[in-house]
Amino acid sequence: MSQSVTEFEVHDIRFPTSQQLDGSDAMNPDPDYSAAYLVLRTDDGAEGHGFCFTIGRGNDIVAAAIEALRPYVVGRPAPTGAADLAALHHDLTHDSQLRWLGPEKGVIHMAAGAVVNAAWDMAATRAGRPVWEFLASMTPEELVSLVDFRYLTDALTREEALAVLRAAEPGRAERTALLKEQGYPAYTTSPGWLGYGDEKLVRLAKEAVAGGFGQIKLKVGLDLEDDIRRMELARAAVGPSVRIAVDANQRWDVAEAVRWMTALAPYEPHWIEEPTSPDDVLGLAAVRAGQPVKVATGEHVANRVVFKQLLQARAVDFVQIDAARVAGVNENIAILLLAAKYGVPVCPHAGGVGLCELVQHLAMFDFVAVSGSWDDRVIEYVDHLHEHFADPVVIVGGRYAAPSAPGFSARMLPGSIAAHSCTDGPVRQVRHTVEEARS
Amino acid sequence: MSQSVTEFEVHDIRFPTSQQLDGSDAMNPDPDYSAAYLVLRTDDGAEGHGFCFTIGRGNDIVAAAIEALRPYVVGRPAPTGAADLAALHHDLTHDSQLRWLGPEKGVIHMAAGAVVNAAWDMAATRAGRPVWEFLASMTPEELVSLVDFRYLTDALTREEALAVLRAAEPGRAERTALLKEQGYPAYTTSPGWLGYGDEKLVRLAKEAVAGGFGQIKLKVGLDLEDDIRRMELARAAVGPSVRIAVDANQRWDVAEAVRWMTALAPYEPHWIEEPTSPDDVLGLAAVRAGQPVKVATGEHVANRVVFKQLLQARAVDFVQIDAARVAGVNENIAILLLAAKYGVPVCPHAGGVGLCELVQHLAMFDFVAVSGSWDDRVIEYVDHLHEHFADPVVIVGGRYAAPSAPGFSARMLPGSIAAHSCTDGPVRQVRHTVEEARS
Repeated sequence: MSQSVTEFEVHDIRFPTSQQLDGSDAMNPDPDYSAAYLVLRTDDGAEGHGFCFTIGRGNDIVAAAIEALRPYVVGRPAPTGAADLAALHHDLTHDSQLRWLGPEKGVIHMAAGAVVNAAWDMAATRAGRPVWEFLASMTPEELVSLVDFRYLTDALTREEALAVLRAAEPGRAERTALLKEQGYPAYTTSPGWLGYGDEKLVRLAKEAVAGGFGQIKLKVGLDLEDDIRRMELARAAVGPSVRIAVDANQRWDVAEAVRWMTALAPYEPHWIEEPTSPDDVLGLAAVRAGQPVKVATGEHVANRVVFKQLLQARAVDFVQIDAARVAGVNENIAILLLAAKYGVPVCPHAGGVGLCELVQHLAMFDFVAVSGSWDDRVIEYVDHLHEHFADPVVIVGGRYAAPSAPGFSARMLPGSIAAHSCTDGPVRQVRHTVEEARS
Repeated sequence: MSQSVTEFEVHDIRFPTSQQLDGSDAMNPDPDYSAAYLVLRTDDGAEGHGFCFTIGRGNDIVAAAIEALRPYVVGRPAPTGAADLAALHHDLTHDSQLRWLGPEKGVIHMAAGAVVNAAWDMAATRAGRPVWEFLASMTPEELVSLVDFRYLTDALTREEALAVLRAAEPGRAERTALLKEQGYPAYTTSPGWLGYGDEKLVRLAKEAVAGGFGQIKLKVGLDLEDDIRRMELARAAVGPSVRIAVDANQRWDVAEAVRWMTALAPYEPHWIEEPTSPDDVLGLAAVRAGQPVKVATGEHVANRVVFKQLLQARAVDFVQIDAARVAGVNENIAILLLAAKYGVPVCPHAGGVGLCELVQHLAMFDFVAVSGSWDDRVIEYVDHLHEHFADPVVIVGGRYAAPSAPGFSARMLPGSIAAHSCTDGPVRQVRHTVEEARS
């Protein structure tokens, strides 16, 4: 007899990161890294963990949205394979009434992602494999069955997706072995937060190079002279061969992005990330056409329909998937397939709470079974809050070691969940912090 | 001494409309029209009402999001004019932590809209004017001060917006008089819900023509043969001179939309509304280019950045603003200005709960002070749930009579609020209805 999901436990978890200005950038001066966190349990005690990442206020709203999805999960047989995971993703994203709150974007879509990812964690754990290998063991037919092709077929049909996956089938075993041996390339954002002083920037940049990273990233966009000074300091610290990407976190309009990046271009930034609104497909295409630095975006892109257009419009040089903003593993498979068809490398966004842990699985799956390549690809790495996870990422020589433990590496330690859950009621906590923000 | 906002009262209001299949379409088979409803009160008893419209499940999530905005309002001086209303809109949409939940889309953005609109209701009521006249009495400088031009300047600068408004200044008094005399043109969707039988469709279509409407709308997209039969029945009922628009509610991919509308084109639909995803700027442009019927969209468009692109890409022939999805009056002013600059008529979406009441003010303001025209423009009208409002819309001869009562016409009757609030706890109600949906 198959097990059923019997428990659905939602936690509002917050870390007071704003006290150190970790994670500070031109749009997010004082984030308090948070997670709306879900634990599923079956009647035989198996678990599945998933979450949305937020930066503080509003984490309770996302928790309420996850809670609203409870009836789609509790009482359902525990998911085991592609068919179950496809059906759950479909049910969560096709509820006609809840869809009104998006459609397929924002709070309700992030919540669906948390539930989908918890189900993947449960299924992979029960199969005894890390999610990347669990995915990479599926047939092309199973993988396309996981994807919702609605609104995609003008750019990617089921048959084209199958062709992408079949083309990558021959080398799966070799690439799996290579990953286990060498890990996946990473870059680090740790030196570059806007709230850090020059000395800390230089020290952390040097540490990054000493640690084996071939790329670092700096936050930019508040003051051009500061950005030029920081680029020069970072270049002197890392030497000529390490790539320096920059990230404006949506700070600019199109013309300002073109002006600013034309001025920064002589310092050879590897990419400019989020130069403007993540909704602005045409604007991003204009920024890419208007200045010489390559464009990266994606961490705030709402869904596969917008990613599709970024590729159709040739608006981006790098697709930055996020594991916890779209509707989980299933929608990210769609985005990986789109990027592979258009030949654009995927360089995942990570950091926050547990995003590194999750997204490494998607990048490794992409390498083994979708794009079949890691050329020009790097996963973001930020050294924050990993100590709260049972199976934290392992960085060796500037690369992500392939996870070997079963599941999605997404389980927070019970002590961390207990210590960082809001105990005085989420709304009260929100009110408190907004009042601080206004004062 | 100025009054302060002291009360912030949120209600989860639901109507069981699915029982009659009112509002049924190809994507929304059984909506339960609902409102996450906000009442503001000052210490001297003045009120401001605003709300988000949803179609049932998830209304409690939006209510929680409105609740999270309480600290930005309570204790604030009661808004009186453009400066206050600009500052409130800015504060609500620029909270760096809450912005992460969008940015500027979905639940958190709709919630900001409810609060902004409640503030406009309060300010206009205190000024003793309906919102459309309150807006139309502002100077071009005041009106542009209400707009957030971030991400718009590649399509519309502050100076261009000022030029649009100044060009419309000369005729304001004449058009105001004309509106009061004749009202604003409307069309009705009441005959066309997909759940209605042929006989009801024909009866309601004839009633619409007898009532003076020059346009009706039918829902399409489930079955092409049914759609053709319904178009023929409707055409026979309304005669050759009444326009028949059709609405697919996002049902199709691009190629399917082109095929379907090519087949329906001989029946001369006035427009095809929401042929595909509201996020798909490039897809809508392809649908518009690929078949002969004009394209309308907007009720699910997340924000001004997407509207900007729809206009830049020449993807739509009609811009369908919604009063309660974007961040309220302020963001809708931005959208009206964009549409005016690109010369595309605005035909507002309405229906649901109170959307007719709200959006008539924006269309009338557009006529008086922005586009200066009502050619090719109609406001949607649906005859649902108006009896719950203190100042319901008045339709005379197929036109919206200009509201004369102070405020936004958005105040639900106290008895209706009390009778339709969820009393057994929103989450319980949500669970109940999802379980019904699954069974």
